[in-house]
Amino acid sequence: MASLLIKEILATPPASQDVTVRGWVRTKRDLKNLVFVEVNDGSGFNGIQCTFDRGSAGSLGEELEAALGAVNTGSSVEIRGKLAPSPASGQAVEVAASDLSIIGDAPAESTGNIAAYPLQKKRHSLEFLREIAHLRARTNTFGAVTRVRSRLGFAVHQFFQERGFQYIQTPIITASDAEGAGAMFQVTTLDLEALAKSGKAPDYTKDFFGKRSYLTVSGQLEAETYATALTRVYTFGPTFRAENSNTTRHLAEFWMIEPEAAFAHLEDNMILAEDFLKYLFNAVLSDCAEDLAFFDAHVEKGIIDTLKSVINSKFTHMSYTDAMAELEKAGSNAAFEFKPYWGCDLQSEHEKFLTEKIVKGPVIVTDYPKEIKAFYMKMNDDNKTVRAMDVLVPRLGEIIGGSEREDNLDRLEKRIREMGMDTADYSWYLDLRRYGTAPHSGFGMGFERLVQYVTGMANIRDVIPYPRAVGQAEF
Amino acid sequence: MASLLIKEILATPPASQDVTVRGWVRTKRDLKNLVFVEVNDGSGFNGIQCTFDRGSAGSLGEELEAALGAVNTGSSVEIRGKLAPSPASGQAVEVAASDLSIIGDAPAESTGNIAAYPLQKKRHSLEFLREIAHLRARTNTFGAVTRVRSRLGFAVHQFFQERGFQYIQTPIITASDAEGAGAMFQVTTLDLEALAKSGKAPDYTKDFFGKRSYLTVSGQLEAETYATALTRVYTFGPTFRAENSNTTRHLAEFWMIEPEAAFAHLEDNMILAEDFLKYLFNAVLSDCAEDLAFFDAHVEKGIIDTLKSVINSKFTHMSYTDAMAELEKAGSNAAFEFKPYWGCDLQSEHEKFLTEKIVKGPVIVTDYPKEIKAFYMKMNDDNKTVRAMDVLVPRLGEIIGGSEREDNLDRLEKRIREMGMDTADYSWYLDLRRYGTAPHSGFGMGFERLVQYVTGMANIRDVIPYPRAVGQAEF
Repeated sequence: MASLLIKEILATPPASQDVTVRGWVRTKRDLKNLVFVEVNDGSGFNGIQCTFDRGSAGSLGEELEAALGAVNTGSSVEIRGKLAPSPASGQAVEVAASDLSIIGDAPAESTGNIAAYPLQKKRHSLEFLREIAHLRARTNTFGAVTRVRSRLGFAVHQFFQERGFQYIQTPIITASDAEGAGAMFQVTTLDLEALAKSGKAPDYTKDFFGKRSYLTVSGQLEAETYATALTRVYTFGPTFRAENSNTTRHLAEFWMIEPEAAFAHLEDNMILAEDFLKYLFNAVLSDCAEDLAFFDAHVEKGIIDTLKSVINSKFTHMSYTDAMAELEKAGSNAAFEFKPYWGCDLQSEHEKFLTEKIVKGPVIVTDYPKEIKAFYMKMNDDNKTVRAMDVLVPRLGEIIGGSEREDNLDRLEKRIREMGMDTADYSWYLDLRRYGTAPHSGFGMGFERLVQYVTGMANIRDVIPYPRAVGQAEF
Repeated sequence: MASLLIKEILATPPASQDVTVRGWVRTKRDLKNLVFVEVNDGSGFNGIQCTFDRGSAGSLGEELEAALGAVNTGSSVEIRGKLAPSPASGQAVEVAASDLSIIGDAPAESTGNIAAYPLQKKRHSLEFLREIAHLRARTNTFGAVTRVRSRLGFAVHQFFQERGFQYIQTPIITASDAEGAGAMFQVTTLDLEALAKSGKAPDYTKDFFGKRSYLTVSGQLEAETYATALTRVYTFGPTFRAENSNTTRHLAEFWMIEPEAAFAHLEDNMILAEDFLKYLFNAVLSDCAEDLAFFDAHVEKGIIDTLKSVINSKFTHMSYTDAMAELEKAGSNAAFEFKPYWGCDLQSEHEKFLTEKIVKGPVIVTDYPKEIKAFYMKMNDDNKTVRAMDVLVPRLGEIIGGSEREDNLDRLEKRIREMGMDTADYSWYLDLRRYGTAPHSGFGMGFERLVQYVTGMANIRDVIPYPRAVGQAEF
């Protein structure tokens, strides 16, 4: 692009060269002889200071004074001047400005049928900002969230591409409730008004796909079909849950990352997950330092230290059985709401206790009871536990879940039947075990949970541009 | 990952070092004293030749001879040996193999209730492979498509990230038919059987989102909300059309890339689109040379030259009005099925004629009649044409469509009304013009069309793992 971003201007050595700044005004301060206008274009956390000096004349001239007078918070402007070293602390350069054009107004007060710009210079609650989600990226908080999210998204691709993983897109619409992982959204082109009037059961042969179709809950099974052809693949796409859970950790639509590797056992999977998290955290610590400093200061104190400590940890490996023994031993001291016992699913309080109190660092718990894990996980020789793994990190608990997959045809068919499912529905999935089967492993990570972890944002609805939840599909 | 990919082994200087190969057998040739097993793991186009030398003993020993005898096309194997220079042409290294384990069989003939492995060594039709989409990535063609697609996907991110664009995820489920771009899929959790029985009109307050909801047809309008906060953003996600078009160029579910930049005019947009295509083509020419050589030899002759010629072209800029004059002038010589006239939408035959016969290279056609373009495009002063652009390339026609957006509140409201739409439905979109409006531009490119263009694959269903179309949502 022809014009420079403010991020680029801020990184340019000042030599009184001509510079043009475009962006939105954050603040204007009009002192006796100086007018300071801070302009931000969202390319980085920091805006650039533009200083207009009235000099000995005491005025910038009629036209420019009028333009400066009309500038409000939120106005889009173009400012021309010379790039100069800044006398102020905390910024290397500023613009010795000589000209300003207002591109777009942002009225500070209601005028005619246009309400005042809602983002006046003051603190706004996150709840209020959720209602104006189309404008909230203009604030410090949501600008920072967006940049961190973008950097993490790119780092996901860099990590896998550097390691020979192929990026694949698994289907969003599917006629198979493959994983049985939760409530699904139905996708249809049937005319529901006509259907209701007809009084006749829906005829899915007339629906777009000729059968009942849904939004996917996971791309894993399809990813396995590609891992057993290309060895290393990953997905990064939206997944859906139609669960009526109105919490700060659930969305109906969220993005998921799912690597899958053939000739990889659970041990390889654990190393991959550990390397992955460290790579992601390093990427944002290096490239989003100002955004993270903001989160550390204003959103969750200590978040930078948390990320660094994960990077500097060797992840502990612990079987579910050992983890449960530790939790039972902690027993009454821990004051769990939910008493842990062998066979129970680990609750968030147990996960946090394990990583924060017992291990004091990241821990990968493996070999869970088969009853609490999915049908496709590889059975251990004890026939009681499966080669599952959950990666737990301090301050959050589970951030990644994965497993080695059952690669034995007979055992997988048996497991499908045991769980009351129909092997015919999984015929294509079973083919992977019929033809050139190979050990393979993978994991899934919810992208929004990752962004929450890195930013410290308490509500998952604040780390995705337009959150979808019960009753919420605006914009 | 601990183990080496075959791609990595092939790039290793041979020094008789120990090496372990894991993958799927493509061919086995048993000569008098030598057995050649070619193993492919999909990490690259080429497999690795593993040579077993029976030597003077005339045998590899009972166990290994038995294992080699049982190896079929499609078997997954682990082969150990020494990496050696290859005497054969076309490959630098081979494995002087000393041991082989079969990990998974792939029966060459039906046995018990397992059918013969469907991918026996012979040519399979693309139609047949579409039916076994879960196995087709194991073929040369679909392995190559997958690698090229992955490389293109990553190149999309690299291109935009290097230029300060933030990767954003716009919503998949939406309650607004924002662009009016086409037939939409409805998303619901209503019980359609119960609805049919009830005989009462659907009560959308009981639906998951509290109102009628759909799958998105474009993320553009939401991307604009972020471009007017962060200046440069892009989306890369799935979009949907519920159109009953059973062609080789349409999918119901496809991936789209949509960059959007503030303070960018149509001229900037044209430069960005040109740079983008050249970047993508350079990436695959550099990094997928063997895959492209395969497409050039077996799928579409000349495809590499086409890509190179686009890279070496300066894209021509031509207004729609000039383009139409050229097409009318060509008139009878061109033998168009559809006679071109000012005001008509450019047909594929017109686009191809423009780029292949008139310009003889890539051309960006701009300033289309407002009647054939979307409401959000910036009106020219003639009040007849809008600042649209379509990028046309030889052998395909349109590959990218975009525009500068209308940034003037009054003109945009007028246009919405003219087109019979309700400004209230676009209140949030209009806010971008109420508060700090700025010139901004963007474009959209269908990812599968791009993959088709680069690979020469004739049917769009062959460039996405699991295509969705009328009657087709398998896997």
